[in-house]
Amino acid sequence: MKIIELEIKTSKQMEMLDITPQINKALQENNIAEGICCIYSPHTTCGLMINEHADPTVVQDIMETLNRLVPVNGSYRHLEGNSHAHIKTVLVGSSVHLIIENTQLRLGTWQGVFLCEFDGPRRRRVWIKTIKG
Amino acid sequence: MKIIELEIKTSKQMEMLDITPQINKALQENNIAEGICCIYSPHTTCGLMINEHADPTVVQDIMETLNRLVPVNGSYRHLEGNSHAHIKTVLVGSSVHLIIENTQLRLGTWQGVFLCEFDGPRRRRVWIKTIKG
Amino acid sequence: MKIIELEIKTSKQMEMLDITPQINKALQENNIAEGICCIYSPHTTCGLMINEHADPTVVQDIMETLNRLVPVNGSYRHLEGNSHAHIKTVLVGSSVHLIIENTQLRLGTWQGVFLCEFDGPRRRRVWIKTIKG
Repeated sequence: MKIIELEIKTSKQMEMLDITPQINKALQENNIAEGICCIYSPHTTCGLMINEHADPTVVQDIMETLNRLVPVNGSYRHLEGNSHAHIKTVLVGSSVHLIIENTQLRLGTWQGVFLCEFDGPRRRRVWIKTIKG
Repeated sequence: MKIIELEIKTSKQMEMLDITPQINKALQENNIAEGICCIYSPHTTCGLMINEHADPTVVQDIMETLNRLVPVNGSYRHLEGNSHAHIKTVLVGSSVHLIIENTQLRLGTWQGVFLCEFDGPRRRRVWIKTIKG
Repeated sequence: MKIIELEIKTSKQMEMLDITPQINKALQENNIAEGICCIYSPHTTCGLMINEHADPTVVQDIMETLNRLVPVNGSYRHLEGNSHAHIKTVLVGSSVHLIIENTQLRLGTWQGVFLCEFDGPRRRRVWIKTIKG
């Protein structure tokens, strides 16, 4: 299958955006019924994660804990001032991999797929590659 | 291939259960010889990881370090009291992806696949989706 | 497709080696044009990650932060003295999953695939399994 590219505009330095609806829309438009998909962030300061999308305080707690563990203004070597964002991206990961069923992501009841912006605001891209099966 | 569902009963608030035998049994019952598989946790307070299954002190050290970094009774916004479990799930991840060879997981000598319960005890599910190739 | 095995020799206790060229060379030698690939570390003290390969200070900051969060000489139960390496491997992960396009990894501009040695120096292996599609 061809690679689908989403464009996501973030509006804060750090935020986690639920992009599940955009992914499901892309699967439907491309008529991808069953298989797996690789959802991939081609950025080094912006990752992807799966977690609760029902109560927004969960995402706030995740972000605050990441900031406590990897402070924005820590002591880093990299001179661009965004080392914290690179490290947070490594901790959450650059991709998520999900099952497709009935032309949509098969997620748990409380799960959503989040773009994790750690060095915004920026225009970000997400690549979706599906494999039938 | 159809999606295989395992049911795993956890018995503690936090524990890591080696589910490699159950996964291999499912691959054999479904006669899946070669390919890759996506092993997926549909929960937001329970993840999956790959690490050493020989010496149980390794898993204890992993759990104690996760508790030091993300304390159970930290200062969190989410009112259900299990924010730590959501954050730990993000750090270990909600899925693992492995190679299948000769109708079983191709793992390193010391590796096992662990269900990481962070908010138990509960009845958990694990989904397995395989792609031949 | 058959499983490709790379052999990587590390030279320090902790280091992150950009193995993108070796992976792309293997994809070309095996003539794998389009699909996805699972890049897998069969070790429990050595992981894989995706992040910036342009400025080496980024990787230094990632390693120093991992050492601050999970000290080499912390208080651990496992008697082999390398618990920190197991825990770091869990935090970065044992595999990465990428899109293949035009017989090479489709990566973002600044991204490389790194072998993360946490308990070297050693001879390490990396498995590559590709699925066409």
